[in-house]
Amino acid sequence: MLADKNIKDFLKETASSAPVPGGGSVAALSAGLAAALTAMVANLTIGKKGYEGLEEEMETIVKEAEEYKERFIEYIDKDSESFNKVMAAFKLPKETEEEKEARKNQIQAALKNAALVPLEVAKNGLKIMNIIETVVVKGNKNAVTDGAVAAMMSRTATLSALYNVKINLGSIKDTEFVEKTGKEVADIEEKIVKIEKDILEKVVL
Amino acid sequence: MLADKNIKDFLKETASSAPVPGGGSVAALSAGLAAALTAMVANLTIGKKGYEGLEEEMETIVKEAEEYKERFIEYIDKDSESFNKVMAAFKLPKETEEEKEARKNQIQAALKNAALVPLEVAKNGLKIMNIIETVVVKGNKNAVTDGAVAAMMSRTATLSALYNVKINLGSIKDTEFVEKTGKEVADIEEKIVKIEKDILEKVVL
Repeated sequence: MLADKNIKDFLKETASSAPVPGGGSVAALSAGLAAALTAMVANLTIGKKGYEGLEEEMETIVKEAEEYKERFIEYIDKDSESFNKVMAAFKLPKETEEEKEARKNQIQAALKNAALVPLEVAKNGLKIMNIIETVVVKGNKNAVTDGAVAAMMSRTATLSALYNVKINLGSIKDTEFVEKTGKEVADIEEKIVKIEKDILEKVVL
Repeated sequence: MLADKNIKDFLKETASSAPVPGGGSVAALSAGLAAALTAMVANLTIGKKGYEGLEEEMETIVKEAEEYKERFIEYIDKDSESFNKVMAAFKLPKETEEEKEARKNQIQAALKNAALVPLEVAKNGLKIMNIIETVVVKGNKNAVTDGAVAAMMSRTATLSALYNVKINLGSIKDTEFVEKTGKEVADIEEKIVKIEKDILEKVVL
């Protein structure tokens, strides 16, 4: 999987003219970085003087953050795969009427998938903000900037994923799907911008 | 170096209770991701129908973006090293007056370095926005979301690096250094937020 590559190679492949990995996979990776930093701040709080009584809460956060991290790692691949499926559908034969119809349906199904995959990243990018806020407010003060970086990385991951949802919505014919998903996009967009701002205001340097 | 690690291991080490890699190295990595996406959009524009006449400009951008990418990769390590130097200075002996004085000076020098390293990341994170804007405006429309993701990643990399500058400034006694650097931080902060907004307004989906 893509996360088995070393960072240099991942950056090299991203920079190349191959369309994947692209912005969607980068979004999932940056959400993964946010999750990792969240776990780190919680880990740096457990057992530290001045933070007694927070052990249980911070251990729960470490566990949750690790789960988010694993999920985001999977989405680095899922996003690239969803793009490849769209490309594959476009390459289907279109000689006969039957082929044309089958190809059209395949393309539409692939586009819906390519919208739903980053939507999941965005939903989780918003959800993880809850534990990021907790580590920023209650966690080890020496690591508060790491919590701030986590909040910003998750904001950017979420907004980046939403761009990838929106570009796919533009080609989807199912108006009900487009309308429903478009509403979800707008809702997450508004919330993520607000919560990042709220968290950063709570960062005391 | 850290960029030779695979992504899974890098995320695992970030999540651990070891203080590095932390937010500073993550900032450099996310600037590297922005640079890689910028190169990708330029690469996807070169030789494409409808984008004739942009070859030279896009080739220059690929070259510049690759240089930024390499620089940011180096800063993933430099940031972690600068943090380790601060930790090492704190561990110096402090029995005699001489030792105390030497330790104090070492700590102050290490803190200045730990502020200047992320300041370089932030300066370059701001500078790269110029070519990100160009690929968003003139580059392959099919990759416009990748340009948008690059702009957001570089904004977050820059702001994240600036948090790391600011936290170190808080412990530096050289008031002239603190004032001068603080002004640079405020200047970059204002500019990066504005330019990200400007670029995103130019993204047509």
